[in-house]
Amino acid sequence: MTKIPVETMRWLGDHVTGSLSLIDQTRLPLELVELNCTDVGMVWEAIKQLRVRGAPAIGIAAAYGVVLGMQQVTGSTPEAFDAHLTKTIEYLAGSRPTAVNLFWALDRMRRLANKLRAEHLPQQIPALLLKEAKAIHDEDRQLCRAIGRFGAELIASGSGVLTHCNAGGLATAEYGTALSVFFTCQDQGKSLKVFVDETRPLLQGARLTAWELAQRGIDATLICDNMAGQVMREGKIQAVVVGADRITANGDTANKIGTYSVAVLAHAHGIPFYVAAPTTTFDLTLPTGDLIPIEQRAATEITHGFGRQTAPDGISVYNPAFDVTPARLIRGIITERGVIDPVNEENIRKVLM
Amino acid sequence: MTKIPVETMRWLGDHVTGSLSLIDQTRLPLELVELNCTDVGMVWEAIKQLRVRGAPAIGIAAAYGVVLGMQQVTGSTPEAFDAHLTKTIEYLAGSRPTAVNLFWALDRMRRLANKLRAEHLPQQIPALLLKEAKAIHDEDRQLCRAIGRFGAELIASGSGVLTHCNAGGLATAEYGTALSVFFTCQDQGKSLKVFVDETRPLLQGARLTAWELAQRGIDATLICDNMAGQVMREGKIQAVVVGADRITANGDTANKIGTYSVAVLAHAHGIPFYVAAPTTTFDLTLPTGDLIPIEQRAATEITHGFGRQTAPDGISVYNPAFDVTPARLIRGIITERGVIDPVNEENIRKVLM
Repeated sequence: MTKIPVETMRWLGDHVTGSLSLIDQTRLPLELVELNCTDVGMVWEAIKQLRVRGAPAIGIAAAYGVVLGMQQVTGSTPEAFDAHLTKTIEYLAGSRPTAVNLFWALDRMRRLANKLRAEHLPQQIPALLLKEAKAIHDEDRQLCRAIGRFGAELIASGSGVLTHCNAGGLATAEYGTALSVFFTCQDQGKSLKVFVDETRPLLQGARLTAWELAQRGIDATLICDNMAGQVMREGKIQAVVVGADRITANGDTANKIGTYSVAVLAHAHGIPFYVAAPTTTFDLTLPTGDLIPIEQRAATEITHGFGRQTAPDGISVYNPAFDVTPARLIRGIITERGVIDPVNEENIRKVLM
Repeated sequence: MTKIPVETMRWLGDHVTGSLSLIDQTRLPLELVELNCTDVGMVWEAIKQLRVRGAPAIGIAAAYGVVLGMQQVTGSTPEAFDAHLTKTIEYLAGSRPTAVNLFWALDRMRRLANKLRAEHLPQQIPALLLKEAKAIHDEDRQLCRAIGRFGAELIASGSGVLTHCNAGGLATAEYGTALSVFFTCQDQGKSLKVFVDETRPLLQGARLTAWELAQRGIDATLICDNMAGQVMREGKIQAVVVGADRITANGDTANKIGTYSVAVLAHAHGIPFYVAAPTTTFDLTLPTGDLIPIEQRAATEITHGFGRQTAPDGISVYNPAFDVTPARLIRGIITERGVIDPVNEENIRKVLM
């Protein structure tokens, strides 16, 4: 057992010939393999195929992706640089639609590049873009730690807690959002019993969350998603903590499919349901969660889970990757600036402004 | 596409050398293969390993299992016959603990054999036991059809309906309990859109229910269990119909794990939740569902669910095969004698007595 946090991704080398090395999360838990992305296309593919996933981690990877995309135009004209920047950012933005951190990070990189263009030669810019991507990466580490500290105050030692999907180190720079709460409890000497939804169809709970908890020696029990209600009914759960992919101005929260069902079940059992997310996951341009675009994924994720056909040929499938939990079911949103409770637009704006 | 009902099992030959041929449901939907059980041990194994499953089907298989177990003692003394009957029935009763139809069918076979013993030579009895097993089998066909007729009255044409696990032809003699309601709607010319929970860990929804619905050309959409809340929230579901493994005197219902979560979700969305089951699934000796024994199954069903390891080595797993839905969440219980609504002890006794 190791308590060294997971290093989800790292930049190797300089801005000219460097590359982005990331853990290929599709191969966990059986293999811990790093994939070295040497061009922006490999980053796009890694995001699209969920080799790197989790809203904050996608944002960080996309920022590094911009650096990789701009490596090839170091010596070009300002106009060519601008055109290539726009193309690179639009390309990366098309990888996945729901997590807002992707667009937030790309926007931050674009704004910096536009500012730099006024004062620097194109060939000077990639080094500064790499510095910015590393800043986004470093800041995320700090955000996760702060979320953990605020969240741990809500969890009593001896509690049973439940989480869905993976909002752990692998979904962020390190330490995670929801799992940062549990890791911080452990650091503080609190004992927890964590129940992990396996999270169909892609089993991020079974493959990633269970692996991270096992790595750190935290008491973890894997269940199928459809057992969450039963463990709640048995009195085994005192709190639910999950991550988020996008939170709208009123507190409605998009997260991995199944989160909404867990929230309804928690509410029916009088169990507090918390969302843990950095302020970069908020999208104040959307008033409510109905407006969040929800990614639809391939039917084969359900019919051929893990390489084997388990449903009849030709069956129709509905496979939304996310759902939206309304603010009224969320007891509090744990951010790096404190806990938003109760969850409403006024309190959200207070914390974000 | 065929509308011929599934023949879940059939007896081949006479009482002396005959055998029980059943569809090996673990091989569906990719292969439709029959397994010929030539001794009681094969029936026990088929029930234990879920080659035959579903409360009514288990009862029927067990009744035939008694015939197979008694074939070998045709010429023995009355005392040897008695001892062997007891041993055979206890053996079959140990195959699975939750579905009450198993114990009901074995008890019916035992009572008949005890009665026959007073008037017949041991060698005359197996033929009469086979007749009784066939009667149980035939009666179940009729029960299923009657359940379908009563249930179809509750479902309007054009409805979206959701079911969990497989309460279809494969779980019974033919036509099913919950699925009998949908099949009868189809027979009556009603159009339905059926959403099918895949039903982890063993995917009876994806493998069996989706297959049965596809065979009959019914509009079916497969979802992961954790999507049920989302499709309800989207207004796609007007009714939920599931089967049952055991119903206690107050109406609490044990059914496949995940049923309880579906019932809570249906309640939260104001959607009627129905249980479809023959009166043989009631156990009036138990006042409430807390007393129903719940089978715990192997961790590998979750950690190695697709023939491939999808969770880290050594992770703890909780794998109850069933949960109990309290009567208060059930709008009605659809039996072959009519619909019990509201669900309470008085109404249950009225229908059962």
